[in-house]
Amino acid sequence: MSSTMQNKASLPVIKRLPKYYRYLSNLQADGRDKISSSELARMMGTTASQVRQDFNCFGGFGQQGIGYKVDVLLAEIGKLLFGSGELLPTVLIGAGRLGTAVSSFISRDTNGYKLIAAFDINPALEGKEISGVTIRPLSELESFCAAHKPVVAVLCVPRQSAMDLSDELVRLGIQGFWNFSHYDLSVVYPQVTVENVHLGDSLMSLGYRLRNHDE
Amino acid sequence: MSSTMQNKASLPVIKRLPKYYRYLSNLQADGRDKISSSELARMMGTTASQVRQDFNCFGGFGQQGIGYKVDVLLAEIGKLLFGSGELLPTVLIGAGRLGTAVSSFISRDTNGYKLIAAFDINPALEGKEISGVTIRPLSELESFCAAHKPVVAVLCVPRQSAMDLSDELVRLGIQGFWNFSHYDLSVVYPQVTVENVHLGDSLMSLGYRLRNHDE
Repeated sequence: MSSTMQNKASLPVIKRLPKYYRYLSNLQADGRDKISSSELARMMGTTASQVRQDFNCFGGFGQQGIGYKVDVLLAEIGKLLFGSGELLPTVLIGAGRLGTAVSSFISRDTNGYKLIAAFDINPALEGKEISGVTIRPLSELESFCAAHKPVVAVLCVPRQSAMDLSDELVRLGIQGFWNFSHYDLSVVYPQVTVENVHLGDSLMSLGYRLRNHDE
Repeated sequence: MSSTMQNKASLPVIKRLPKYYRYLSNLQADGRDKISSSELARMMGTTASQVRQDFNCFGGFGQQGIGYKVDVLLAEIGKLLFGSGELLPTVLIGAGRLGTAVSSFISRDTNGYKLIAAFDINPALEGKEISGVTIRPLSELESFCAAHKPVVAVLCVPRQSAMDLSDELVRLGIQGFWNFSHYDLSVVYPQVTVENVHLGDSLMSLGYRLRNHDE
């Protein structure tokens, strides 16, 4: 069973991988050995053909007649999501309420990241601890990054601060952003990988669907 | 210029509406009168044909030769997102770190919601204030909902708690969920509107793209 990539996976497929991983982890915890694409699809609210099509982007994961082996599938998807298991060194920019809440997702090492520092402009937060790291002043950002080479930055700051800081962060070697700000980094820095989480947008589109009874 | 819906808008189009709204608000703040689809597209990192196609789902918003009128476009998209301006009464379930962080998005009335109560299972939180409302024990959920008829519930609780509570919430009249839990509500309750925010999944798919240099 090969895990060579046959087609370049599209972003929607990539965004579904963690969901497959979650469901398969639950199945493994329940002691299940095998699962068919149709049963997996039913659990996840999708179609068997979608599941097979998604898996085919990654070589198919060796379906055999009566279904996929849960442990094989989990291992292969895990390899795609987490590589050989090394954690991505990550800095958090903005340690307010939102930064505090998301820091626990970064430091949960099952997600594949290692939180190595947090920075905030507010002097009252300096020296406090957040998810196992100390909050530092922004003035230390450059020297810290030069010394510790973080790969990912998590932006929990307002749009203007994100605009002010992103040039420096990209120059300091940041390759990926988990971006909660309203600054559209990917337009300005096409070479970096950006995952946007726009909570306000998410709420507004829920509102549209509720007000226009769109389902 | 008509705002009648010509085609049923697909979910990806609906999810882009708040982004258009944000960019147009910025343009209006900058004193811009008109904008062409190609300039809007360039700012947003998309294509002019995508912009026109999206707007055509809602009747086209009256483009005239040299472009769209910013105020008309903003008003029309605002009407789609916020209806006549009435706020959706909303309860927050789970007032921990994540619930606290997201409560400020719900109570920001520019998003179209009104936070009317928060509930938590932790007795230590009872009576505390969060974004202008008092945290109540879960035992008050039923009587509160019967009296105040919330339309939206925000789930900032673990998967098992979401499973335990959602039957009751749907029975009590909740029509929409902003779901931060890993419980896939939309599979179980196809009649309700669900907007999922899976922060762990978002981090994992960023990791995939970084590890596989997928852009």
